[in-house]
Amino acid sequence: MRRTAVRELLKVTARPEIISFAGGLPAAELFPVERVKQAAERVFERVGAASLQYGETEGLAGLRKWIAAEFRRQSLRSSGEHNRSPMPVHPENVLITSGAQQALDLIGRIFLEESDCVAVENPTYLALLSAWRPHGVEFQPLHSDEQGMRTQELERLRGRPKLIYLTPNFQNPQGTTLALERRTQLLRFAQESGAAIVEDDPYGDLRYSGEALPHVLTLEPTGPTNVLYVGSFSKVLMPGLRVGWVLASAEVIEKLVQAKQAADLQTNSLGQHIVLELLEAGFPDEFLPVLKENYRQRRDAMLEALERFFPSDVSWTRPEGGMFLMVRFPSLDATALLPRALAQSVAYVPGEEFHLGGEGRNTMRLNFSNARPERIEVGIRRLGQLIEEQSVSEGKGSAVFRL
Amino acid sequence: MRRTAVRELLKVTARPEIISFAGGLPAAELFPVERVKQAAERVFERVGAASLQYGETEGLAGLRKWIAAEFRRQSLRSSGEHNRSPMPVHPENVLITSGAQQALDLIGRIFLEESDCVAVENPTYLALLSAWRPHGVEFQPLHSDEQGMRTQELERLRGRPKLIYLTPNFQNPQGTTLALERRTQLLRFAQESGAAIVEDDPYGDLRYSGEALPHVLTLEPTGPTNVLYVGSFSKVLMPGLRVGWVLASAEVIEKLVQAKQAADLQTNSLGQHIVLELLEAGFPDEFLPVLKENYRQRRDAMLEALERFFPSDVSWTRPEGGMFLMVRFPSLDATALLPRALAQSVAYVPGEEFHLGGEGRNTMRLNFSNARPERIEVGIRRLGQLIEEQSVSEGKGSAVFRL
Repeated sequence: MRRTAVRELLKVTARPEIISFAGGLPAAELFPVERVKQAAERVFERVGAASLQYGETEGLAGLRKWIAAEFRRQSLRSSGEHNRSPMPVHPENVLITSGAQQALDLIGRIFLEESDCVAVENPTYLALLSAWRPHGVEFQPLHSDEQGMRTQELERLRGRPKLIYLTPNFQNPQGTTLALERRTQLLRFAQESGAAIVEDDPYGDLRYSGEALPHVLTLEPTGPTNVLYVGSFSKVLMPGLRVGWVLASAEVIEKLVQAKQAADLQTNSLGQHIVLELLEAGFPDEFLPVLKENYRQRRDAMLEALERFFPSDVSWTRPEGGMFLMVRFPSLDATALLPRALAQSVAYVPGEEFHLGGEGRNTMRLNFSNARPERIEVGIRRLGQLIEEQSVSEGKGSAVFRL
Repeated sequence: MRRTAVRELLKVTARPEIISFAGGLPAAELFPVERVKQAAERVFERVGAASLQYGETEGLAGLRKWIAAEFRRQSLRSSGEHNRSPMPVHPENVLITSGAQQALDLIGRIFLEESDCVAVENPTYLALLSAWRPHGVEFQPLHSDEQGMRTQELERLRGRPKLIYLTPNFQNPQGTTLALERRTQLLRFAQESGAAIVEDDPYGDLRYSGEALPHVLTLEPTGPTNVLYVGSFSKVLMPGLRVGWVLASAEVIEKLVQAKQAADLQTNSLGQHIVLELLEAGFPDEFLPVLKENYRQRRDAMLEALERFFPSDVSWTRPEGGMFLMVRFPSLDATALLPRALAQSVAYVPGEEFHLGGEGRNTMRLNFSNARPERIEVGIRRLGQLIEEQSVSEGKGSAVFRL
């Protein structure tokens, strides 16, 4: 019921006067509508009726081929050894899904049974919990810090997790990135214990500072085995087309295809053709730098505003990419503060939404991709004032918002 | 394994020389590509970036409104009493889904638990079984005849079925239509026993002869209660956009929305906007008559060819609409015949694929929407010759294909 109440409150974020740090929306004003329109025209001219007809459940052959080739290239880049041969990734390792969310849902369907143990970061991606909870699984939360999931904690679960779910790059909700040695440790644990790693990477290409790290997937020497990599065009192109994918062993893909057939037959054909058209035209090379430069400015505007307007005993993460950061208060209840923030036309998501085990009431998730820098500054200033007022009233003995 | 073998065989149906009665594909050569292209252009101009952004899980507000209004109109038409007020159907009774298949999947998720009893026609829609079987349900097959599901058989299941699934109009695979008195009887059974009816109606608008019958849904006097109506734009517009819907009580829709959020967040925005643009331009009034006239000719061509080329002891259904009919042989094994048919470049789906309880080996499903009349005649003639040869070899004592 409480969650529903938060959802209801957040519905007001659609009002234009609201400065929303709540959703996980890309910046629509940056969408290359004219280019997509041209791409659609070319699809109708070149592909014609086939772009509106049923297609294969596996997804558009050209798109699967493009994704496989991209991962072969990435495996070479991330290895740093130019003589090495690329990781063996082929179209049969790729399933196109209706957004990354469907990939997560299908993975749950083919892997999970009642009482299975699933290791997740705490906090973690909310819609992953909604997708897998109906299977009656037991979520084992692992702590995370500035280096991402504390993979050393996996040891105490030895042998038990069937799946390990994480977002190694610019995690939602924390914005943290998994350190390289932890990626290696994670993979070793999975190999030894027989667990599968679900590497959810919707934001990986949105890096604004620091060095890119190899995917956990590309650390596997002989091709996809223990890792299922989940990707998406939602954040680097546009989410409304609903085109994501899974990259995994051919055996896993075959099972996922059967599950997808029952779930929605196939991902929409037109969206797949438009994405392929944009990829083949090299559009991401043109668009991604613009997108990243804008998001970097927004991240920096938020970090600067937090520094200026938030009390000195409050801390927050400093993401190297992605769309979110997380603020942690010494004692403030961020859920209880939300109605006051909304009254000031500022929205965010209370951090406890993303936590297991009742933790996180003193945290809030802030999205920085969907407001311009000036608006970010105004919004953070208002939040900062509210928090100051709160501290004052706490000093007066009111403990309403204390944990 | 056998099913997989059939799927593999059917993959050859993509070869252009094959006359395929196998798939369930609409006729792509009739798709109004130019009109869809114009509609997409208008969407990019009028809606712009919002057509590529995340949208509400419930679906595009305008599209839900259009569907609700259409059902209010239909409820008046089907009642035949012009003074009656329309059935109360509102946008909150509508969820947009990623094709009708997703609607069926989501319904299974929110209703079904292990050992639940589900009543289905026998034969029934194959992908319904795939979607609901993982819940561990018990399918209770009901016989069907020229009048559709034998609803009188529901009595022997009194109280047990949680869901009753059927395709009342031009069923897949049989092409049969549920008689009006059976629609009433079905609804009364559901009301008395508390069962929910899943009225799957992808083909309802594709009627080529006979009188249109009211939806089971519109027989409910006070709005959607026991009936969940599943609709789709795949057969009346284009399937590649993947836009379907469920119409049900607001309480059921609310639960389906939560399930959909976990499944794929939302149906692709661009496809929804294109469909709405076409609907608002009144395009179906223009397109549907053309589509129906073409499909009617194809149905008639198939019925005439069956009459001419199939032995006189073979029977088949005579659908008043839709895309399929079903052939029944006295003893021929249609599964065993398939490789020979493919060798003659003709494809179909063996009827046993759609049957529960091992029935139907003497049946085949023929699709007539995806081949031109001349090709239909050639294909049926070849099948007829094969069947004749088979009868001759049977006469010689070979019983390979006998049941």
